[in-house]
Amino acid sequence: MARNQEEVKLLGVRGSPFVCRVIIALKLKGVEYEFIEENLGNKSDLLIKYNPIYKKVPVLVHNEKGVSESLVIVEYIDETWKGNPILPIEPYHKALARFWTKFIDDKIFAAIRKALFTKDEKEREEGIEESLEALQFLENELKDKFFGGDEINFVDIAAAIIAFWVPIFEEVVGIELVTSVKFPKLYNWSQELINHPIVKESLPSRDPLLAYFKGLFANIPASK
Amino acid sequence: MARNQEEVKLLGVRGSPFVCRVIIALKLKGVEYEFIEENLGNKSDLLIKYNPIYKKVPVLVHNEKGVSESLVIVEYIDETWKGNPILPIEPYHKALARFWTKFIDDKIFAAIRKALFTKDEKEREEGIEESLEALQFLENELKDKFFGGDEINFVDIAAAIIAFWVPIFEEVVGIELVTSVKFPKLYNWSQELINHPIVKESLPSRDPLLAYFKGLFANIPASK
Repeated sequence: MARNQEEVKLLGVRGSPFVCRVIIALKLKGVEYEFIEENLGNKSDLLIKYNPIYKKVPVLVHNEKGVSESLVIVEYIDETWKGNPILPIEPYHKALARFWTKFIDDKIFAAIRKALFTKDEKEREEGIEESLEALQFLENELKDKFFGGDEINFVDIAAAIIAFWVPIFEEVVGIELVTSVKFPKLYNWSQELINHPIVKESLPSRDPLLAYFKGLFANIPASK
Repeated sequence: MARNQEEVKLLGVRGSPFVCRVIIALKLKGVEYEFIEENLGNKSDLLIKYNPIYKKVPVLVHNEKGVSESLVIVEYIDETWKGNPILPIEPYHKALARFWTKFIDDKIFAAIRKALFTKDEKEREEGIEESLEALQFLENELKDKFFGGDEINFVDIAAAIIAFWVPIFEEVVGIELVTSVKFPKLYNWSQELINHPIVKESLPSRDPLLAYFKGLFANIPASK
């Protein structure tokens, strides 16, 4: 099937860092796609059809075949459309990239959630400590402008949540995680990343997202 | 570097289902390797050197480069040594295989842990319910002798924990999860898998493992 006959749909919500990973990957590859905004309070038949297990976004529907889980989708995109490689080619570097994306989701994202989405002070302190410890590993790993070197790669895409969403969370909650003092390399990287032309046009608008998370945070019960 | 000059070491412990994934993958590929048994109570310098972040097994050390995380290692092995492919070649089927292995680790393993490693009855009941719900998705997905069709693939390797370890856990705790009545396809698959020649020679001995988990279970505090 020629590229111009391909049908690519992305089921998502604009503010999600996981959906944004897929948008960045599609734009890097120059893939035309239709964005279908989901209402997570009233999930569409399409979403339930293509992700019956989790019923979560993002879901990529490519010629009526659905792929779920943001990192799985990004690898699928990289393997399906050639040019502008997202993962390294060499198996060892590919394995390292997969290791770090898993680390971002399993450790950093989990710790940051714990630090932010609570009003329990003890839990927040623990979450902050775990976040700083996990972020330090990522800081140490960063050797160049991007994790991918001069160009962004799989790890940069996975870590976009740290560059764009975490500062919003910090503002909502009133704590500091990724500062230029604590993590100078990650801080500079985050500025480079959000100003990278493909990333910049893929990110959601900041102000509505800030308002959304302020509302979300205000509704967390004051004590456990 | 020719194959016979390659140095492949696997840092592991014999009873771990995650280490076993790597052993199965290496044996499928016919890769010669040195197994280095770790004492997790007194971790080796090698383990700390090659997996400084998690300090966990398995770690594959190939020509002095370390790769961690069992599923990342299995993909690395598949990409490094050709022949007997472990992941499907076609990107969509590859994405599905990655989705299911992630599902096994994120959902099934987490639910089974919750059901087994507790003496809190309410938590156990919840864990059992979550396990049965998650296992049903896997039962529905199984169409052939193996997840890989006639031959085992990435999903079978990831799911070996269900075929071999879960029955041991069931015996220790006195509950039933994967029975021929509840999950006939998964039950038959589990018998096929543990009798697959490569898997059979990769599995640890059952009796010491049973004794080990009995001891572990006996030491879980009686109430929370």
